[in-house]
Amino acid sequence: MSTPKKNQPFVTQIQVRFGDVDPAGIVYFPKIYDYVHQAFEEVWDVHVGKRYYHLIGEERIGFPLVHSEVDFKSPLRFGDRPIVKISCFRLGRSSIGLHYRFFVADVLCVDARMTTACIDLDSMKSIETPPDFRARFEEIMEDA
Amino acid sequence: MSTPKKNQPFVTQIQVRFGDVDPAGIVYFPKIYDYVHQAFEEVWDVHVGKRYYHLIGEERIGFPLVHSEVDFKSPLRFGDRPIVKISCFRLGRSSIGLHYRFFVADVLCVDARMTTACIDLDSMKSIETPPDFRARFEEIMEDA
Amino acid sequence: MSTPKKNQPFVTQIQVRFGDVDPAGIVYFPKIYDYVHQAFEEVWDVHVGKRYYHLIGEERIGFPLVHSEVDFKSPLRFGDRPIVKISCFRLGRSSIGLHYRFFVADVLCVDARMTTACIDLDSMKSIETPPDFRARFEEIMEDA
Amino acid sequence: MSTPKKNQPFVTQIQVRFGDVDPAGIVYFPKIYDYVHQAFEEVWDVHVGKRYYHLIGEERIGFPLVHSEVDFKSPLRFGDRPIVKISCFRLGRSSIGLHYRFFVADVLCVDARMTTACIDLDSMKSIETPPDFRARFEEIMEDA
Repeated sequence: MSTPKKNQPFVTQIQVRFGDVDPAGIVYFPKIYDYVHQAFEEVWDVHVGKRYYHLIGEERIGFPLVHSEVDFKSPLRFGDRPIVKISCFRLGRSSIGLHYRFFVADVLCVDARMTTACIDLDSMKSIETPPDFRARFEEIMEDA
Repeated sequence: MSTPKKNQPFVTQIQVRFGDVDPAGIVYFPKIYDYVHQAFEEVWDVHVGKRYYHLIGEERIGFPLVHSEVDFKSPLRFGDRPIVKISCFRLGRSSIGLHYRFFVADVLCVDARMTTACIDLDSMKSIETPPDFRARFEEIMEDA
Repeated sequence: MSTPKKNQPFVTQIQVRFGDVDPAGIVYFPKIYDYVHQAFEEVWDVHVGKRYYHLIGEERIGFPLVHSEVDFKSPLRFGDRPIVKISCFRLGRSSIGLHYRFFVADVLCVDARMTTACIDLDSMKSIETPPDFRARFEEIMEDA
Repeated sequence: MSTPKKNQPFVTQIQVRFGDVDPAGIVYFPKIYDYVHQAFEEVWDVHVGKRYYHLIGEERIGFPLVHSEVDFKSPLRFGDRPIVKISCFRLGRSSIGLHYRFFVADVLCVDARMTTACIDLDSMKSIETPPDFRARFEEIMEDA
């Protein structure tokens, strides 16, 4: 939940709740993408400094997902409180690629790359990512 | 999925999916209210003959829940395909009370009474239930 | 998130996330029961001092819902961070009745009474609520 | 819901429900992965001829996701009833790669490739996919 130094990932924490876990004892996988969205909302609220609901409701800017690529390396279990490290792996004119890594006790459990477009929610057309937002994502850019 | 005769309940079926079940092996209870909403959407689509998404999106009429009272009598488990019988226990000027009973092999598992208001989604004010909808709910009215 | 004084409710906070809100702009009602479960897990973790996942996984004690009664008084919206006050309205030999009140800026939005049984998860039989847990619920007992 | 001829994809249908749609009017993306799991359960029940809950509960075989790659090409909306075509793009010794394509009125909306491992749920170790299951997945194999 801390705002990182430049070129450090943003860090937040997720809690695996009772209702997230399936009969096999591990997190039902679609729930993991919900965690990714929770972490994405935290990036906006805490790091960018823009509550995601203001972004959607007042600025009418949205970031729909266009591509996802995820490795599930180790299961998440009920009671786990994974640390999520979020960095930016791509910053295009109107797209943002965020890299989410979930760790439980230093074990990398989930490694997700999510590419979102930046759109105007009224026209549903792609627009350029506003420069003040772009600057905050540059701060969590991964080394080339 | 059949349209009932007058004074017979409307009947539909739910499937308990893998992601609905918790580590204790039974349906995570908030999911049961989601089943109730699924059954409610079926009442509209099949019995009333109005797709719920047309109701919301085009007629701009909504039925928010105002009161719920639910008995959980027997657990639902992964793989169950409960039959849901839906009847009307109250039909007010601008409110509808629906009674949902979930059966697995003739065992009553869930007994739910949900009272919804009828509102105009633009003004968010209570309105009279339109007479053509009201007539369909009268058909599934419980005996007094 | 504070442990209350005797006869004060336990207080926690919920955040209404993007994925919780429906096309009508308010929280999809089954999600509210999920919030109730989240608050219930917080009562265990923070007030009772027993992580809910230890309770389930190690002590093999569960608290399945047997009855719920909920009034939806005012809608919850995207971005709301309701305060939830939880008190005990009934403490039977093997059942606990908890009262959850959701407030947004002092407006009571949801008023829920949930009665759970105490069961042995291996035998799935009702058991007496262990006295150390019972003592913690007495601390948040409502006045008669 | 039909069992396909050899080298034809398996076809099923999903319904976008009220609770799946977000305030921007489109399906909340994590819900799409839940649809993928629903379609996966249908492949088992209808095409393979093994109810997924028997597989998990009785045979103690699971298919956890190890890798996903998804393109979101066009949004899914409330009321859509996408057709999902499922074919097999990879059939390893102990892994299965399934390709899910969601169409609304011939428009490809979601294109997902999900690779699952085959594991023994008791030991949580990778095992060879049983030959009778393997044979059914060969029937929906994509052309090389």
